[in-house]
Amino acid sequence: MIYLDNAATTLKKPHCVAEAVMKALCTMGNSSRGTHDSALQSARSVFSARMALAELFRAPGPEQVVFTQNATEALNIALNGLFSKGDHVITTDLEHNSVLRPLYRLEDTGEITLSVVPADKRGCVDYGDFERLIRPETRAIVCTHASNLTGNVLDLERIGGIARAHGLLFVVDASQTAGVYPIDMERMGVSVLCFTGHKGLLGPQGTGGLCIARGVDIRPFKVGGSGVQSYSRTHPAELPTRLEAGTLNGHGIAGLGAGVAFLLEQGVEAVHELEIGLARRFYEGVKDIPGVTVYGDFSHWNRTAVVALNIGAYDSGEVSDVLAEEYKIATRPGAHCAPRMHRALGTTEQGAVRFSFSLFNTPEEVEIAIHAVKELAKCD
Amino acid sequence: MIYLDNAATTLKKPHCVAEAVMKALCTMGNSSRGTHDSALQSARSVFSARMALAELFRAPGPEQVVFTQNATEALNIALNGLFSKGDHVITTDLEHNSVLRPLYRLEDTGEITLSVVPADKRGCVDYGDFERLIRPETRAIVCTHASNLTGNVLDLERIGGIARAHGLLFVVDASQTAGVYPIDMERMGVSVLCFTGHKGLLGPQGTGGLCIARGVDIRPFKVGGSGVQSYSRTHPAELPTRLEAGTLNGHGIAGLGAGVAFLLEQGVEAVHELEIGLARRFYEGVKDIPGVTVYGDFSHWNRTAVVALNIGAYDSGEVSDVLAEEYKIATRPGAHCAPRMHRALGTTEQGAVRFSFSLFNTPEEVEIAIHAVKELAKCD
Repeated sequence: MIYLDNAATTLKKPHCVAEAVMKALCTMGNSSRGTHDSALQSARSVFSARMALAELFRAPGPEQVVFTQNATEALNIALNGLFSKGDHVITTDLEHNSVLRPLYRLEDTGEITLSVVPADKRGCVDYGDFERLIRPETRAIVCTHASNLTGNVLDLERIGGIARAHGLLFVVDASQTAGVYPIDMERMGVSVLCFTGHKGLLGPQGTGGLCIARGVDIRPFKVGGSGVQSYSRTHPAELPTRLEAGTLNGHGIAGLGAGVAFLLEQGVEAVHELEIGLARRFYEGVKDIPGVTVYGDFSHWNRTAVVALNIGAYDSGEVSDVLAEEYKIATRPGAHCAPRMHRALGTTEQGAVRFSFSLFNTPEEVEIAIHAVKELAKCD
Repeated sequence: MIYLDNAATTLKKPHCVAEAVMKALCTMGNSSRGTHDSALQSARSVFSARMALAELFRAPGPEQVVFTQNATEALNIALNGLFSKGDHVITTDLEHNSVLRPLYRLEDTGEITLSVVPADKRGCVDYGDFERLIRPETRAIVCTHASNLTGNVLDLERIGGIARAHGLLFVVDASQTAGVYPIDMERMGVSVLCFTGHKGLLGPQGTGGLCIARGVDIRPFKVGGSGVQSYSRTHPAELPTRLEAGTLNGHGIAGLGAGVAFLLEQGVEAVHELEIGLARRFYEGVKDIPGVTVYGDFSHWNRTAVVALNIGAYDSGEVSDVLAEEYKIATRPGAHCAPRMHRALGTTEQGAVRFSFSLFNTPEEVEIAIHAVKELAKCD
């Protein structure tokens, strides 16, 4: 199988990831629960993953890195723990339901009001809109780093500058960029960075987290066992424990730590260049095929390695099925949990077929995928 | 190392668990996201784990099994999603902070009122207290199946009978019993069973969940991407998706499914007998050592394979450290996130040293542990 669904989850991981999970499964106790060797080993492994992530994202320190099950949980923790009644929040058309639905829920219960920066037909925003939408009660800008549908990247440094200038919180969904596009929390002025472990970070599923700038206070979402301060009626107030209740996914975090260590060794810039090389070749190969429509902004390559397209009026699900069954190429059709983005692109009915590349894909695989699209377009 | 900290996490898992995780890590896509082979394989693996768990717990069906990161998350979902303002809830002194802290938070914000069934010095409850504490506004009984400190088991069928007779919800924390003590949701009248995957179920960390009786409505805790109904403003209303937002821990759930399959093959009754045999031998070996105090009710063996003790007035942390360093025996000292239980036992200052056994421990390991306690008691 040629796996081109890396924006959903990276299938191929470096060997060190599986090895780390395997070792953890055979030797690891419960992190922060007890002081015997295997519990301490677990605690050390978790701490070392925090260190690696803090380095990767230029987060303020390992204790500001909180582990969760996935980016959705991280976003729920941030969005439910930051705002007060009457706050106004700005988000964008590019968002995934993991951002939209928590915000909609807060809006529907009257907790916040919400404004959305629109995207045009290429999935691009006008950065002036962020500024224009700010009101006296605006508390935060919440946005993705890159659209999971088009691969368009938002200029975080620019948006972070606007947030900083107006004293706003800046919450970022880095699901599509963590590990494959450079992130510098400090330079970009990010208050809370939410990430998932199983995509660009090359870790196992069941991992993810938040990196939190110092001074940003998030109320606990889950509370419970903490391994420390057991006699306190309330969950410990200190990060990272403040936002981590119950036994951590020590086995998964060991794998995530190995994935991040691999990326630090390779360099995110090098990974990005490699992936973009593949995506660019694919884009060049398909963009002029008669009947093929490619979505997104390809006027520059500051983007992720995602190319979404349609062939004629074919349903994207049908095309994706044929690609899977006849060409053994895995892609993702449909709505991609990005309803507003599809509305902006005008693809709500048809959906789109998303090809997403990882550093483990090869130029040969790209050629086969181009060939498949060409053949399918001929049937149009 | 002799690992006797299985109540915190089981270190030794059956080979099939690591194999399943390994296979998943090499071949698995994102469950419910796409229809190519690796995504479907992931969906099938997750479904098969739901089936196995429904069989193990006699849950009403696989769609009533919801996956979470751990039992704490499951309990937070249940306790934050079931009650309305003014509800009264009954819990017990045996609870872990994963039950207590979510309930305290609801109490402190004025959402619920709370009554606690007291435990005596052996950690036992008077079942009549459940009935006596019921008021017109009582909505639920929330309790653990077994104390993580003493190993005392609560008679769920009896408590479930009381709940049923008064039309109350019955929420159970099965962290200490899932996989090692028979559970029959239907017979026991359990409304919501919360479990963790990495203890008696022999799965990886980062797994757990809830089994929900039909007709019990839990409001979503997290919302976000669901892979289906992407154009809906709200999270899908149907179980299990209703309570599962974001990418599932497919890799971990594959391992959990293998662990549960192993248990179904062995039979939970057989596992319980094996573990209790080890715990019983340990108890018999230490109970009469001068200076040793054992906590809990050992008048019968309807209990879990946990034996907590102290040696003279020694701090439990010190004893546990010496056991780890000089005898290479891993135990868990301190408060065990069970503050009310320690208060009932009178051990808040000293804590206790908890020995907890799994089916992979051996009689030889038990003898070594008894010998170690004997030697340490001599120093007293």
